[in-house]
Amino acid sequence: MSAAWPEGSRPLSDAQPSNRIAAPADQVSLRRHNLAVVLRSLRDVGSRSRARIATDTGLSKATVSSLVAELAELGLVRDGEVERAGGIGRPGQAVELHGRVCGLGAEVNVDYLAVLVLDMRGDQVLYSRIPFDVPAAGVRRTLDELANSIEAAIAVASRQGHDVAGITVAVPGLVETIPGVLRYGPNIGWREVRIADELAARLAKPEISDSARTRAAGGGPSGGGVTIRVDNDANLCALAEYVMGASAGASDLVYLTGEIGVGGGVISQGRLLRGADGYGGEVGHMPIAEPLHLCGCGRRGCWETAVGLAALLREVADQGDPVTDPAVDLEVRLAEIRRRAELGDGRTLRGLEAIATSLGLGAAILVNIFNPRVLVLGGYFAVLGDFFLEAMETELDKRVVATGRGRCRVELSTLGFTAAVRGGAHVAVEAILADPTSAVRAAIPADVGGGTP
Amino acid sequence: MSAAWPEGSRPLSDAQPSNRIAAPADQVSLRRHNLAVVLRSLRDVGSRSRARIATDTGLSKATVSSLVAELAELGLVRDGEVERAGGIGRPGQAVELHGRVCGLGAEVNVDYLAVLVLDMRGDQVLYSRIPFDVPAAGVRRTLDELANSIEAAIAVASRQGHDVAGITVAVPGLVETIPGVLRYGPNIGWREVRIADELAARLAKPEISDSARTRAAGGGPSGGGVTIRVDNDANLCALAEYVMGASAGASDLVYLTGEIGVGGGVISQGRLLRGADGYGGEVGHMPIAEPLHLCGCGRRGCWETAVGLAALLREVADQGDPVTDPAVDLEVRLAEIRRRAELGDGRTLRGLEAIATSLGLGAAILVNIFNPRVLVLGGYFAVLGDFFLEAMETELDKRVVATGRGRCRVELSTLGFTAAVRGGAHVAVEAILADPTSAVRAAIPADVGGGTP
Repeated sequence: MSAAWPEGSRPLSDAQPSNRIAAPADQVSLRRHNLAVVLRSLRDVGSRSRARIATDTGLSKATVSSLVAELAELGLVRDGEVERAGGIGRPGQAVELHGRVCGLGAEVNVDYLAVLVLDMRGDQVLYSRIPFDVPAAGVRRTLDELANSIEAAIAVASRQGHDVAGITVAVPGLVETIPGVLRYGPNIGWREVRIADELAARLAKPEISDSARTRAAGGGPSGGGVTIRVDNDANLCALAEYVMGASAGASDLVYLTGEIGVGGGVISQGRLLRGADGYGGEVGHMPIAEPLHLCGCGRRGCWETAVGLAALLREVADQGDPVTDPAVDLEVRLAEIRRRAELGDGRTLRGLEAIATSLGLGAAILVNIFNPRVLVLGGYFAVLGDFFLEAMETELDKRVVATGRGRCRVELSTLGFTAAVRGGAHVAVEAILADPTSAVRAAIPADVGGGTP
Repeated sequence: MSAAWPEGSRPLSDAQPSNRIAAPADQVSLRRHNLAVVLRSLRDVGSRSRARIATDTGLSKATVSSLVAELAELGLVRDGEVERAGGIGRPGQAVELHGRVCGLGAEVNVDYLAVLVLDMRGDQVLYSRIPFDVPAAGVRRTLDELANSIEAAIAVASRQGHDVAGITVAVPGLVETIPGVLRYGPNIGWREVRIADELAARLAKPEISDSARTRAAGGGPSGGGVTIRVDNDANLCALAEYVMGASAGASDLVYLTGEIGVGGGVISQGRLLRGADGYGGEVGHMPIAEPLHLCGCGRRGCWETAVGLAALLREVADQGDPVTDPAVDLEVRLAEIRRRAELGDGRTLRGLEAIATSLGLGAAILVNIFNPRVLVLGGYFAVLGDFFLEAMETELDKRVVATGRGRCRVELSTLGFTAAVRGGAHVAVEAILADPTSAVRAAIPADVGGGTP
C-alpha cells in the first residue's frame, strides 16, 4: 500500500513552532531544511527531474543537484527513469525516493506483540504479530521477546535490501515520550518502565548482528543510529488513521482502541493532542459504567470495563468457551464471535448491543468535547462494528448536543490491529523526512551522483 | 492592567498554517506581514527607536521608517520619548504603541450582558455589566439591549480618545465562528441566531453616531470598518486566561465556566481547541449526574445540572431566599452565599461540598483527556472556590489515572466574570495586530512622521 499524502493533509510534527517572527537560520540548519524540502517534495509530489524539483521548490538548480547528491549518499534517493517534460527541452533523469531506508513500529499490548516496517514511500516491508501474555510475562521477558521480534524483523528487512533507521514502540498507557518512559500501563500492570533504554540495551547485545548493534547503539563510523521512540498506542493509531486510514486527512479525528483497555487518540486541527506531559487521551477511565467490574486501574465504573475486550467476552461467552482463551490468537477468536453473530446467535447479538449502547454513551462525551468530523473505531470494534454501529449511532444522536451529531461520522478502522505499529513506523519515517541527515549513512555505494538535471 | 505577553507564550491564531514549504509572498502581503512584525515587536518588547526595531526584526532601517509612518497614519503607533541607547550613538526617538485603537468584547449570558474595551497595549478602557434575563427577553430584545450597551461603550471610549476597531461577542452555546452564527444555546434557548449580522444591522441604525455607523457598516471614506466576531464564551475565557490570567502562558489549560451552564474552553499546546465546526468543549452535558433535574438541553443527568449555578442555588437556598432572585446582580447574591459560608452555615457548607464532589468527578474526566497543567475555575466557581477546592482535589486525586493528577493545578480565575469579554476584546485587538491595515484609518492627524531613527 502507498502512504502518499492525502490532499489537504500535511506531515504532522509535535514541534511545529508558532513563532511569527522568523529567526535567521544558520547554514547547517538551512542545509538540513533544504534537504528535507527536497525529500518531502519527492515523497509528496513524486519522482521528478532535478530541474522540475528546482522549479517546484524555488531552490536553484545547482542547489538541488548538490542536495540530491547528499540525499543519494544517505541512501534516501536514487536515479529513476529518464523523463521528457512534455517533449520540450532536454530530457532529464528523474530522481526518486529510494525504498531502502525504513521505519519500524513495534507494539506491546495486553495479549500480543507486533512489528511492522514501512519504507520511505510508505510501502509495507513486513508485518508480524505473535500472541503473548504480557501481564503474565512481566517487563523483562516481554522486552526480551520484543527485542527478538525487532531483531528478526531487521534481519528479514536487511535480506530484502532494507535498513531500519528508526524504531517507535507503542504501549498501552501513560507515556512520557522524552525520554521514552511508560509511566503507567494499567492493563499490563507496568509502572515506570524505561522502554527506550531497556530496548536499546537489548538491541545492543552481542547476539544481534553487528550492523544492527552499531545502529542501535547510535554510534558507528557512519555517524548514523537507530533512534528508539516510545508513544501511547492510541496516539499512534490516530496518527496512522490521519495519514493512511480510510479518513486520511480529516483534521479533527478521534480514534478509539478496542482492546482490553480503551484508549483515545485525538487529532485536533491536524495535530496530535498530547497534553502537557503526553498523558492526554485517557478516555477509558471515564466513570460512566455500572460499578460491577474491577478495572485494570483498580477503580470501578470505568468506561472500559463496559466496552473493552473483557466486557465483550463476558457478554458473549462463558468461561471455558474457546473465544475466551488468551492463548488463541485474538483475530481467530473474534472471527468466531463474528461467525456466531452472522448466524443470528441471540446471546452474541444481545452482547454486542449492550456494548454498542455503552460505547455510544462514552463516545457522545468525546464528540461533545472534540467536535470531530470522524470517530474511528479500532481494534475489536473494527472487526465486529457492523453489528453495533446502528445502536451506537442511535445513542450518539440522543446525546450529542450539536444537531446531527455535529456531522460526525463513525467509521470502522480499515487498518485493524496494524494501526499502532503502522503509526509507529510512520513516526520513524517522518523523523528522517524532517532531518534526512539522521538517516543511516549507506555502506553500499550511492547510485545517484550529482548528475545533470 | 497590562497584557504583555508572558514568557514562552505567543499570540494565538486559529489559522496558523503548518506548511513546511514556504510559498513566495507577493508585495502587498509582504508589506502587511512586516507591518504586523513591527507592531507586534512594539507590543511584545516595548517602545524602541526605529534603529533598534530594525536590529531586532532584521528589517532595514529605511523599511522600518516607512512601516512606522504607515502604522502612525493608521493611528496605531506614535512618537514617544527620546532614547539614548547606553549613551552611545545618536539619540533616537522611541516609537510607542498608541492606545487609541481598541478592541471590544461583549457577552450575552443567561442573566447578564457585559462589555469590556481593551486598547492595543492590553490596558482596560472600560467595563460594564447589567443584570438581564436573556431567556425571558428573547433574541430581539436582548440584541437590541446588547447593541445599546456596545453603542454606549463606544461613545464613552470615544470621549476618552479611543476608537473601537473590532468587536467580539461571547455567547454560551455552539457557535459557528464564520459567519458568526449561534447554532444552539441550550441555557438561553436560542437556535440559529445570526448574531454578527443582527448586531451589524443594529449598530448601523441611524440612531447611533455617524462615526460609529460608518465603521460598523464596514464602509466609509477611511476604508476601515468594525469587524464583528462571535465565539463561544468558554473559548474566549480560556483565551483570556492563557493570555492575561494568573496562569498566563500555560500551554495546556482547561477553563470551566461556572454559570447556569458549565462550558469548557481548552488550550492545547498553545492553541484553542475548536473542533471541526467550532463546537468543541461542550463539557456540561457529560451524562455523569443523577438524573434528578432537567437540563437546559432537554436531557437529564447532564453534569451541569449537578454543578451549574442552578444546582448551587438549589443546594444552598430555598425558593424565596433572596440569593435565588435573578433580578439581583449575581455578584451580590454570591457575596451573600460567601458570607454564610464564612459564618459556618451548615446548609451552605454542605451544599458547597456536594458541588465540589460532582465538580471533581467531571473535572477528572477532563484531566484524563487533556492532561492540562492548569484547570482554571471561572464564574461562580472562582467566587466560592476556596470553600470547595479541597473536596474537589480529593476527588481528582482519586480519579485521575496519572500519578499526582498528572501535575495539574486547580486554580480560581482572577478574571472573574470579566474573562469572556476580556478574551473577546483580546481577539479583536489580535486581529489588528495580525493585519494592521484592518485598523480604522485615523481622521485625526498622525503624530508620527517618517522621522529619522
